[in-house]
Amino acid sequence: MLAADIGGGSLLIAWQLKGKKVLIIGGGEVAGQRVESILSTDAHITVISLFCNLHEKTQKLISQYPLRTKLLDKMYEHGADSTDLLNYDMVLTALDDFELSKTICHFCREHRIPVNAADIPGLCDFYFGSQIRDGPLQIMISTNGNGPKLANLVKGKIAKALSGQEGAAIKKVGALRVKLRERAPGVGGELGKRRMSWMTKLCKEWTMEELGTLNEENMQMLLDEGWENDKVPSAKALGVKPLSICVPSSNDVVFPGFIGFCVGIACVTTWNWLRR
Amino acid sequence: MLAADIGGGSLLIAWQLKGKKVLIIGGGEVAGQRVESILSTDAHITVISLFCNLHEKTQKLISQYPLRTKLLDKMYEHGADSTDLLNYDMVLTALDDFELSKTICHFCREHRIPVNAADIPGLCDFYFGSQIRDGPLQIMISTNGNGPKLANLVKGKIAKALSGQEGAAIKKVGALRVKLRERAPGVGGELGKRRMSWMTKLCKEWTMEELGTLNEENMQMLLDEGWENDKVPSAKALGVKPLSICVPSSNDVVFPGFIGFCVGIACVTTWNWLRR
Repeated sequence: MLAADIGGGSLLIAWQLKGKKVLIIGGGEVAGQRVESILSTDAHITVISLFCNLHEKTQKLISQYPLRTKLLDKMYEHGADSTDLLNYDMVLTALDDFELSKTICHFCREHRIPVNAADIPGLCDFYFGSQIRDGPLQIMISTNGNGPKLANLVKGKIAKALSGQEGAAIKKVGALRVKLRERAPGVGGELGKRRMSWMTKLCKEWTMEELGTLNEENMQMLLDEGWENDKVPSAKALGVKPLSICVPSSNDVVFPGFIGFCVGIACVTTWNWLRR
Repeated sequence: MLAADIGGGSLLIAWQLKGKKVLIIGGGEVAGQRVESILSTDAHITVISLFCNLHEKTQKLISQYPLRTKLLDKMYEHGADSTDLLNYDMVLTALDDFELSKTICHFCREHRIPVNAADIPGLCDFYFGSQIRDGPLQIMISTNGNGPKLANLVKGKIAKALSGQEGAAIKKVGALRVKLRERAPGVGGELGKRRMSWMTKLCKEWTMEELGTLNEENMQMLLDEGWENDKVPSAKALGVKPLSICVPSSNDVVFPGFIGFCVGIACVTTWNWLRR
């Protein structure tokens, strides 16, 4: 394969913002979307915008999360405010003023502050994309700048393919891993390998829907009967019943079933009629 | 909703590395995975590692992409080499030496160089995740540090839900957008809005599989008969036949059909038997 065949993409990454400071310059609708995106992390958010310019959504989010967000009720002025940018770990501009946005971007890039300017892709360190969130599970769909409409179509397909138990499964497996480490503590070595291979086997043999339904009692049984005997019991053996299994939609089952039913009737009727 | 309910996640972003310089410190298996990840972008990659320590995969990728990758055949020495780090736009460590990795991370964070250290999540600016790539379409699955096994299970579900025509659809829609801009040029205004709403309507009414099958001739017809008459003809009307349509797998159809068939036969037979 040539490099040209594999290149051309972005590096999709999960940026960590726990305890970090993010500045959003602007208060319109896009600024509101940015506030929402950053709220999914544990960052502190500052919005610079005149209060009167705040979009309804932006205003609502700021008043809804007073401990996570702060409004600086003023217009951003480059020069007077630019050194303040250095106090932030990420800067997002959502301005109608293209020139101002460009100036901010150049300043940020010069000082290695990760920056995204809405509508000026050429100046962005990174792009946003369509997202799906289910607790610890996050999925991002990027079309590499080819528009959000198609990303949303793909998002719809993906959302339909998930049972909604994936986030729960990830949480439960995390909790089980903690319990297992308490029971068989230590870092690395043979025990570490055994722990890892047992968890891997469990994740292979159980469905995500079964994993998502684990409770304290099942986990205890899984460790007592499974880990201690170096085996992975089936979900059924432990009495774990998934809340919702990802089955084909009812139409996908009912329609072929109905057609089969009619064909069955037609066959027997024809057979009986021919026999007469 | 409380902030606690929506927080706790990462910011999933598409980082832009076109023309940027990425340094990978280490040459083992993980370094190879890093080289592979970065090759999907258009960055220049430098690997620091003794040649004799290179994993087979890392070595192969470096020799396969000589224009995109460079090997510095030496051990990384912090102090002597640390100022060199400032020449890079991103640093990834894949070392067994935890202390060295930590030192590099602290240096990078101090100098705002985006950094990822394999196996030291607490020090990373960002994490990698499971990925799906189909040309311009990129999908990332993150479990927020809850392990790659479950991310891969989710990846499997997603891959199954896609028809494989999504990347092609995104490319074709991009090409059509360029043609439409040539035919109806100009930025913003009424024409800009009409262009956008026509493209939106097309993406809504056609399936991704139909969009993915567009060719030069269809595109011309779509613009001549559709855009010029301010309507979106159906794919069928233009003779566009999708190469592969995402239908339920044969088992999903055959099994309910067979059950229905059996039930049909059983019903008629019972009915006939009761009538005797």
